[in-house]
Amino acid sequence: MPSIRTASSTPELFCDGYGRPMIHARKLFGPGPSNPYPEATAALGLPLLGHLDPVFIELMDETCDRLREAWGTSNARTLPLSATGSAGMEAAFVNTVHPGDVVVVAVNGLFGVRMCDVAARCGAEVVPVEHEWGAPIDVERVLSAHPSPAIIAAVHAETSTGARSDIAALGAGKGDALLLVDAVTSIGGIELRADDWGIDIGYAGTQKCLGVAPGLAPFTINERAFDRRVVKPQSWYLDLGLLGGYVGEAGVRGGTNGGGRTYHHTAPTAMIASLHAGLGRILEEGLPAVWQRHEDAGRLLQDGLEARGLELFAEDGSRLPELTTVRVPDGVDSAVIRKTLLERHGIEIGGGAGEYAASVWRIGLMGHNATPDAALLVLAALDDVLQR
Amino acid sequence: MPSIRTASSTPELFCDGYGRPMIHARKLFGPGPSNPYPEATAALGLPLLGHLDPVFIELMDETCDRLREAWGTSNARTLPLSATGSAGMEAAFVNTVHPGDVVVVAVNGLFGVRMCDVAARCGAEVVPVEHEWGAPIDVERVLSAHPSPAIIAAVHAETSTGARSDIAALGAGKGDALLLVDAVTSIGGIELRADDWGIDIGYAGTQKCLGVAPGLAPFTINERAFDRRVVKPQSWYLDLGLLGGYVGEAGVRGGTNGGGRTYHHTAPTAMIASLHAGLGRILEEGLPAVWQRHEDAGRLLQDGLEARGLELFAEDGSRLPELTTVRVPDGVDSAVIRKTLLERHGIEIGGGAGEYAASVWRIGLMGHNATPDAALLVLAALDDVLQR
Repeated sequence: MPSIRTASSTPELFCDGYGRPMIHARKLFGPGPSNPYPEATAALGLPLLGHLDPVFIELMDETCDRLREAWGTSNARTLPLSATGSAGMEAAFVNTVHPGDVVVVAVNGLFGVRMCDVAARCGAEVVPVEHEWGAPIDVERVLSAHPSPAIIAAVHAETSTGARSDIAALGAGKGDALLLVDAVTSIGGIELRADDWGIDIGYAGTQKCLGVAPGLAPFTINERAFDRRVVKPQSWYLDLGLLGGYVGEAGVRGGTNGGGRTYHHTAPTAMIASLHAGLGRILEEGLPAVWQRHEDAGRLLQDGLEARGLELFAEDGSRLPELTTVRVPDGVDSAVIRKTLLERHGIEIGGGAGEYAASVWRIGLMGHNATPDAALLVLAALDDVLQR
Repeated sequence: MPSIRTASSTPELFCDGYGRPMIHARKLFGPGPSNPYPEATAALGLPLLGHLDPVFIELMDETCDRLREAWGTSNARTLPLSATGSAGMEAAFVNTVHPGDVVVVAVNGLFGVRMCDVAARCGAEVVPVEHEWGAPIDVERVLSAHPSPAIIAAVHAETSTGARSDIAALGAGKGDALLLVDAVTSIGGIELRADDWGIDIGYAGTQKCLGVAPGLAPFTINERAFDRRVVKPQSWYLDLGLLGGYVGEAGVRGGTNGGGRTYHHTAPTAMIASLHAGLGRILEEGLPAVWQRHEDAGRLLQDGLEARGLELFAEDGSRLPELTTVRVPDGVDSAVIRKTLLERHGIEIGGGAGEYAASVWRIGLMGHNATPDAALLVLAALDDVLQR
């Protein structure tokens, strides 16, 4: 068998001495991706369907139905966008920001910072409301930042800091503004009720608590926001007006018009089959049970870390169970510990974000990994590598 | 096992009477997706890697190396974008069109039409050069459409019509303009030599001749085009300046800085592992052999169709071997035939695009499906359903 490797490659990473593929079975306990639910992985291996196949169209409809349950919404326009969660953020702003619109962004971590960048590229007059990283957003301060914003944007679960914010309170006070929410690290992990909380536009990712590989952005937008949308946004790929036909007649729930979808782009059918299966696994368990499982695993981990004298980073009372942030102890080299965890235990945890890159660790117990055993394992492995 | 199906679903599409998943093993002989190479499907089932894992970074580097071979380029900035081929088109324009730039677009099918839409959303002054669908582009007419365009854009293999155009001739005459090329349906199927032909910016898809599921957009841009880029494009997600760090130090070839990647977004690691494997399969066979295989399968199919009295749609001399277009015979209902092929033979072929929706079929023998047996099978199945 001729070698196809280039000078840059390190063959032993992918093949053993016999040319057999090497499997790197990581325990993905970082900020994402997490190890997918087995059902989601199995679905990736099913025979591929065409994006206009009646079976795929039915599968897409059912995926959208399942996403509605995960979001807690009845929005007709609820679908998986064909790109990662960050493209979900872009779709949210690009379809709703008219040039000169005032967009108030609650910034309490990296993803709030990114929202400001993305909104500005859409022509928004951005009003950032800065918070200390690790803290939840201050709802009153955000609501009073501008008298009449077009959009108020916030992150439900800040992946960069591990803090949870009160979206329901934002929704209750939003007035005429549209509420745009990042639910990348909350969907499928903690309580999320888009309709009850007044979320008008929401985006998420698949690779955190939904327990599916990265590659899709679950998205939802209600009629109120859709009616105010940019009719011809600067992005063709993420144009929700064009995407309507892609998921059925103007996104009408449960369409069964097998042959009648409008072609927009080729849907990533393998990834959508995987999302369909992952959501099936979650809804079969039941969302409240899934949330409780995340809560229990996160509590076990956080209690264990504190019992070992480690200091949690996110503010007490606002700590996400699915993503724990902890300060790197004085005198400990963060990168060395993470490397040792990976090499000795096959465990991936994350460094911090931004200025906390070297001083905070991020430990995710998300989706399929939200179990007591995963919490015990990461604690035991930390004991080993920290020698405490 | 409690049912999680909603009122809209048709359970028998996914489960048999015992609740076992039903497998729909289609032969995907439409315009894409095609059935992936088995190596690409197998890779989807490997344990997921984190996007910052040193093993994944090495795999990403090697994927980019392999893409360089498939593109025929030495461009450092060659990478799989984290969305489908249509996002590749958007990335191409959004990073290179400055407001008011003249963009000449050769329009000889649906994807040329789409290029005009996408370029206009980037602020281009679009100069479309219209052709009859089914014909290749008229290079002289395109080159003389404007005295000093910033960009000349064309589709190498028009998926909507089955026609191949001469990109090398465009490149030879482009002058100071940048040449932007859609290679969605050509890469991995027919000769493609980005550097030799003078392609400055190119995008493609994974789900055609590369034989990988849809979800990524192989992309390449040379230094000349990168130097003229929009420094802060309207898209954050597709901003090539930001994406540089995502694939290594400014996209430098074969970087091995395991721990040092800049975080931009979470790479779709499962899909990239699959692309890595699919490309490995292709390069192991050898690109010239793969092109010949597509040529042979397409020739067999096209000869067989003509022997049956069917009329090919794309212009003689410019027919793509990997995607054959054929006129629906008079008195035959296109949709009924396609439905019967699917239900009786498990074979998917495509309808036409645009005004040819009901009067043309598109039959793809791409990637893993580019075999004599696939050609014989689709001919035999057509004999059956057309009763000829």
